[in-house]
Amino acid sequence: MIILIQCKDQVGLVGSISTVLASQGINIVSMREHVDTIDNRFFIRIDAQGVDDFSMIERQLKAVLPAEAAIKINPKAEKKVIVLVTKDYHCLSDILIRNHFKTFGATVQCVIGNHNKLEEICRRFDVPFYLVSSENSDKQIFESALFAVIEKYEADYLVLAKFMRILSAAFVEKFAFQIINIHHSFLPAFVGASPYKQAYERGVKLIGATAHFVTNQLDEGPIIAQQIIPVTHSFTSADMVRSGKEIETAVLAKALQLVFEDRVLLHKNKTIVFE
Amino acid sequence: MIILIQCKDQVGLVGSISTVLASQGINIVSMREHVDTIDNRFFIRIDAQGVDDFSMIERQLKAVLPAEAAIKINPKAEKKVIVLVTKDYHCLSDILIRNHFKTFGATVQCVIGNHNKLEEICRRFDVPFYLVSSENSDKQIFESALFAVIEKYEADYLVLAKFMRILSAAFVEKFAFQIINIHHSFLPAFVGASPYKQAYERGVKLIGATAHFVTNQLDEGPIIAQQIIPVTHSFTSADMVRSGKEIETAVLAKALQLVFEDRVLLHKNKTIVFE
Amino acid sequence: MIILIQCKDQVGLVGSISTVLASQGINIVSMREHVDTIDNRFFIRIDAQGVDDFSMIERQLKAVLPAEAAIKINPKAEKKVIVLVTKDYHCLSDILIRNHFKTFGATVQCVIGNHNKLEEICRRFDVPFYLVSSENSDKQIFESALFAVIEKYEADYLVLAKFMRILSAAFVEKFAFQIINIHHSFLPAFVGASPYKQAYERGVKLIGATAHFVTNQLDEGPIIAQQIIPVTHSFTSADMVRSGKEIETAVLAKALQLVFEDRVLLHKNKTIVFE
Amino acid sequence: MIILIQCKDQVGLVGSISTVLASQGINIVSMREHVDTIDNRFFIRIDAQGVDDFSMIERQLKAVLPAEAAIKINPKAEKKVIVLVTKDYHCLSDILIRNHFKTFGATVQCVIGNHNKLEEICRRFDVPFYLVSSENSDKQIFESALFAVIEKYEADYLVLAKFMRILSAAFVEKFAFQIINIHHSFLPAFVGASPYKQAYERGVKLIGATAHFVTNQLDEGPIIAQQIIPVTHSFTSADMVRSGKEIETAVLAKALQLVFEDRVLLHKNKTIVFE
Repeated sequence: MIILIQCKDQVGLVGSISTVLASQGINIVSMREHVDTIDNRFFIRIDAQGVDDFSMIERQLKAVLPAEAAIKINPKAEKKVIVLVTKDYHCLSDILIRNHFKTFGATVQCVIGNHNKLEEICRRFDVPFYLVSSENSDKQIFESALFAVIEKYEADYLVLAKFMRILSAAFVEKFAFQIINIHHSFLPAFVGASPYKQAYERGVKLIGATAHFVTNQLDEGPIIAQQIIPVTHSFTSADMVRSGKEIETAVLAKALQLVFEDRVLLHKNKTIVFE
Repeated sequence: MIILIQCKDQVGLVGSISTVLASQGINIVSMREHVDTIDNRFFIRIDAQGVDDFSMIERQLKAVLPAEAAIKINPKAEKKVIVLVTKDYHCLSDILIRNHFKTFGATVQCVIGNHNKLEEICRRFDVPFYLVSSENSDKQIFESALFAVIEKYEADYLVLAKFMRILSAAFVEKFAFQIINIHHSFLPAFVGASPYKQAYERGVKLIGATAHFVTNQLDEGPIIAQQIIPVTHSFTSADMVRSGKEIETAVLAKALQLVFEDRVLLHKNKTIVFE
Repeated sequence: MIILIQCKDQVGLVGSISTVLASQGINIVSMREHVDTIDNRFFIRIDAQGVDDFSMIERQLKAVLPAEAAIKINPKAEKKVIVLVTKDYHCLSDILIRNHFKTFGATVQCVIGNHNKLEEICRRFDVPFYLVSSENSDKQIFESALFAVIEKYEADYLVLAKFMRILSAAFVEKFAFQIINIHHSFLPAFVGASPYKQAYERGVKLIGATAHFVTNQLDEGPIIAQQIIPVTHSFTSADMVRSGKEIETAVLAKALQLVFEDRVLLHKNKTIVFE
Repeated sequence: MIILIQCKDQVGLVGSISTVLASQGINIVSMREHVDTIDNRFFIRIDAQGVDDFSMIERQLKAVLPAEAAIKINPKAEKKVIVLVTKDYHCLSDILIRNHFKTFGATVQCVIGNHNKLEEICRRFDVPFYLVSSENSDKQIFESALFAVIEKYEADYLVLAKFMRILSAAFVEKFAFQIINIHHSFLPAFVGASPYKQAYERGVKLIGATAHFVTNQLDEGPIIAQQIIPVTHSFTSADMVRSGKEIETAVLAKALQLVFEDRVLLHKNKTIVFE
């Protein structure tokens, strides 16, 4: 059983929490705790064994914690996700493989594409694919169509696996902190069109990828995971894109594993990742 | 204040510990806990604020913990260390710089060399240097001479910063888990003489370094930190040595920081590093 | 067009080679050269444009190079490979995905398993799978059965994608420097059974993977690519295995890309990788 | 002897160049070549042995190369550098150590600080330190004072080792592509004041450093080297600064080594690094 708690920090929180658990004969296998001393905020992740009655535990924890405490007791072993894609196969394929061999830590309910290019790979894995074209329709109509598919399923998370449409604030709000995106990143950042072309012209020596929760500020939500891959002057712009895809695949997989194992807590615009 | 505890795992340990701290009005700033479920062993590191009476805390903790519990309450902000060297300047110089600017997290008491090559750099930093030659003397005499220098100081740790003599089991035992060594490592490992030559001939693509506590099995003590640096076919054996030195310097610095900040616990032949 | 040459080093080699190319109006897009000054051996990789008559070029190069020069002029855009597997899906799946989307740089002719567990994923990608059981048969019979499948195809390389059988010297010799293997690596290396268990007990902080050509000394052939992934004390032995699989997948993919793009030259027991 | 050439690409360049070298009995130890196929530009670095008469070689190369070719024949084993600093000791100290032990690949002529904090460490290494205060003086006066010191020496490069003043376009132009700077970098980039505070608030998982040539666009000159270091939510803003310093030190050292070994060619706003 995983227990995640965050609340205002105060003296004795860990004692109160662990006394509750001990009183129920629950054994703590692993505990990770963090205090944001600037914001005076307390975060804890407990991996425990030996519990049956989750609601009893929750009730008892509520009794000893501040009223505003966010308590998440999560017996759910497998999350349910919907994957949104456009044309790039690399992240989706990696997800489909892990999903197929049951090492994804979640179950892919369906894939939604605004192009049909990736329908074929979904079919090979018997995963439902929905084409929701964004052509010739305004954003509101497009998102309504997306929503119509999504609500057929009970999804815990929407994974944007190289989904190349910007979602509206209204849409994002509906799935607050349930949408995870992956995108390339550079040192320095290149604003505007053709970032890989700019990166090539600047001769960057690293290409990075960032997986993050989506908020209504584009690409600016809380970061879950980041990694880089080295490149050299001999990389063409196309080679950089290829390397970028390798690292995007790896970072998204890592970020999703962390989220699905309930290792990620959110506070303001940052994550606490109890790896 | 840092508190480090390890003992047999049992239900309620975290509760008992944190209840003791809360009862004294101590605020936990950061807590990291680990249970080795195979060995049934509990490890915790607590960073807390608001304590005056350390012995009182220790007494109360002892009262609630198993008798065999190892409790380390460490108000000591600065460790004291002695550095042992031979001829290589890279690790020693890095230590002297950090020591000089008071960012080492410890104070270098003195440097002991079995060659005099590094005396000059020590003098520049006003750090005492002792030459204890290993030539023309058997190991017992050599180690007695080392010991004679060491006992002039109260050292918490001996740092082997490219000290190229193998210490006897008796010597190591005298400073059990107080001796930290750095050495190059390869994938695969190369046994025998001239590992860099072997690495070159095999065309390895990585060179690593490992910082570890010294036990009486040569190079086989608990690992504190490891890192690698990429190399290519264009590296000569000498280039590999040079790259190896860069990574040795970085890894030893990292390992010492972890140890000096009391982030490293020991159990059997491994470390628990609460980074 | 890629041209690979290796021969004894002597003054004027690059001049002779490039004069031949220029005389045919061939433009050198990229050239990478290496001299092993210890062995006095010359290696070059040329990426050139504007050639029609490969045999003419080869004839002219032979005329200006030492008689023992190994010249490889390779117009073949796509290599053909056979993948050998046992039960682990991670490397094979990654290969099947890349093969399916035609970004593998080679074409998978078929997959041979000594277990049938991975037949199903091959079927999903319409790639022929052959079960060649190693149970109840001695190595010679087993390898004859492998060979019977292999000779149905024209394979440039055999990829051991977590193939858990040791091939005989005779078999390896038949495919000298055409067999590529991936295996986990540690700093330090752990000899004997259960390396992950040993790594766990030693508390290693890194897990690596090495892709190499197979020679008749087990796991000791020329290294093509190596990478590592950091681990901590909180990793169980199973977690280490999981991390190991991630890095094995990445390293094998990288090594195969280098080989298929003809970036890897061999000399004695090492590779020259013109990345 | 190192030979660096760049010019418009055309058929037969390598042949012409290497024929010149062979005709003088010069042996090519290592050659790295790159063609920027977008800009149609040719770059080559040759490491050769057996030459006496550099001017003869240069004359002959000029005869076979396009008129606009930039030819740099560099017998200079040791570059001369001036280091500019403010208060941060980490990069300067690393340079002083390498300089002291003659592994820097260059000789530090003097250090100029706009604060006097680092005078003491320079004195320990017998390296002249000049205080050129930037307080109470406008930029032109300040830079004139800098220049007055610089012109006392024959410096090949100015190294900005955490020099916290922005140099004017006029000053930069005077030392075009002779000024090397190091600065922290983030994914994403944080514009404006307090980037580490922003990085902390955003919860970045990596901190990077970039070494680059200084052009008159602030922090936007050609990149020489980049690396990153991982960070976590448990890093305070101060911890991030500390990690940033470690990686800045390593990246600047690496970049300087590449420059001093004449491995870096410049074209437009990027580098070609023949590592």
